[in-house]
Amino acid sequence: MLGEIAGIDEKSTFASRREAYEAGVHRALQAGIVGTGDTGAESIVVSGGYPDDVDEGSWLLYTGHGGRDPATRRQIAHQRFDSPGNAALETSRIQGLAVRVIRKVGKVYRYGGLFRVEESMLVYPTGGEFKVCRFEMVKIDKAIDATYAPVEVEVSAEEHHPDLPIGNFEPGRRSSNVQRIIRSTEVAERVKTLYDHTCQMCGIKLVVTGDRGYSEGAHIQALGGLHRGPDVVENMLCLCPNCHVLFDSGALIVEKDRSLLLNGKPAVLNNKPAPKLREHQDHHVDDKYLAHHREARGKS
Amino acid sequence: MLGEIAGIDEKSTFASRREAYEAGVHRALQAGIVGTGDTGAESIVVSGGYPDDVDEGSWLLYTGHGGRDPATRRQIAHQRFDSPGNAALETSRIQGLAVRVIRKVGKVYRYGGLFRVEESMLVYPTGGEFKVCRFEMVKIDKAIDATYAPVEVEVSAEEHHPDLPIGNFEPGRRSSNVQRIIRSTEVAERVKTLYDHTCQMCGIKLVVTGDRGYSEGAHIQALGGLHRGPDVVENMLCLCPNCHVLFDSGALIVEKDRSLLLNGKPAVLNNKPAPKLREHQDHHVDDKYLAHHREARGKS
Repeated sequence: MLGEIAGIDEKSTFASRREAYEAGVHRALQAGIVGTGDTGAESIVVSGGYPDDVDEGSWLLYTGHGGRDPATRRQIAHQRFDSPGNAALETSRIQGLAVRVIRKVGKVYRYGGLFRVEESMLVYPTGGEFKVCRFEMVKIDKAIDATYAPVEVEVSAEEHHPDLPIGNFEPGRRSSNVQRIIRSTEVAERVKTLYDHTCQMCGIKLVVTGDRGYSEGAHIQALGGLHRGPDVVENMLCLCPNCHVLFDSGALIVEKDRSLLLNGKPAVLNNKPAPKLREHQDHHVDDKYLAHHREARGKS
Repeated sequence: MLGEIAGIDEKSTFASRREAYEAGVHRALQAGIVGTGDTGAESIVVSGGYPDDVDEGSWLLYTGHGGRDPATRRQIAHQRFDSPGNAALETSRIQGLAVRVIRKVGKVYRYGGLFRVEESMLVYPTGGEFKVCRFEMVKIDKAIDATYAPVEVEVSAEEHHPDLPIGNFEPGRRSSNVQRIIRSTEVAERVKTLYDHTCQMCGIKLVVTGDRGYSEGAHIQALGGLHRGPDVVENMLCLCPNCHVLFDSGALIVEKDRSLLLNGKPAVLNNKPAPKLREHQDHHVDDKYLAHHREARGKS
């Protein structure tokens, strides 16, 4: 079950993994991640198990699961985004789902609140021979999410259709969560203007008013504390919202020769074959950023 | 010019419209809105010119421009979203652009900061014979936007290609603005699961990991302080990101018979003709919400 557990707050402490399990807060006795690629991650246990892990309270770098020899606890293979725990965190990232964080503090376990998976990367750890899945997680501030949430609306009993199999039968207040945030920078605006909001991957231009298009600037090597990509035109693509989601998720990659692969096959995007990235003569995308994206998403 | 003006802050006061004009804060002497449908709205003057206008400091309901008899100042025609000032605010809404607000306070004008256009609606005002364009505007809290913004990245001189006509030549810090926020509610999640993330308009399913799709729940009659739509399945569509943008902008509407019109013509969405909204047998979309959407966007 995703989200808050009734009666559990940031004062809640558990003497053992079993206690945390029975409280429903982390429903596994050994595994650090509970969840699947289908549902997203319900919860994780943060215990500094890997040397590059960082815990700054509201910001975490967390290493995923897998590739360890159970006897020696040494890394003997690459981690993968498609193994169950890592896939769960990937789904949480792409779908914008909240993950419960439980911290090992000395001998006990303390509930740390809900976090969002901001970014992820397949990367060699310091001094490591094998790649790990690293996740950047940011604490959800309910006051901030609420600011962006629309005014809660009282739903009256008259609004419902009791004879329908699916419906909302209890009057009450509903609130919303942030699922995905599209950002823009001055550099992004320049690139979108250059392409007149035409997607570099599928060629679509969404016309929203009069003649004006809508598109999104996608940093190839993501900005932020994990990927640390630069905000420059060489690291930017003008994409339609659909291609942007596919690119951010890692399902869609750009090869060195600019061919487009979707889930490993020549890309069909928005119902049309999309063999190659389109580039304006005045816009040069640097392959080092495309290479970072391929590697970081585990696709190279 | 969009955004903050150097040297102008919320203490800045102007003795007249001309002073505000010369400071670059509101570059028109009479008009209440500066901007175009192409660029978005640079600035607006809030002076309580219409009876239903509301000013709560960080939240405004603002009536657009047009349809007034200049001699009597009475409304003699409907306002339209495609007249210049209103089109400018619509573009700001759809593109997520920041608008400067200047308030008339007694005889003087005071800068009120940057606002986002949260929603818009074509509606009959209280006691009015003719529709007006009403805009819901929310003050941008830079601390909150910054929380969602990625860590600012120092860009070194080595990152640039000085021989390219477009590039980012000054090392320095860049930050991002929120362009668009996708929200979800429990009701939205239920509808998306029912459709298995397949868009009810164009039929596409974006596959992001393994088998899992990505889609967005769109309230037909928007939640929030302007449209006050309910969070119920009858008021919800499962859409791909592209169709969601087109629907929110008002470019794409659903007729009473469920046919889809894009900019007034039978819809072609994501490169395919999309004649009708698809509905699952267990999901009933109520036409009263579709009608609200058509009217609110000025399309009925």
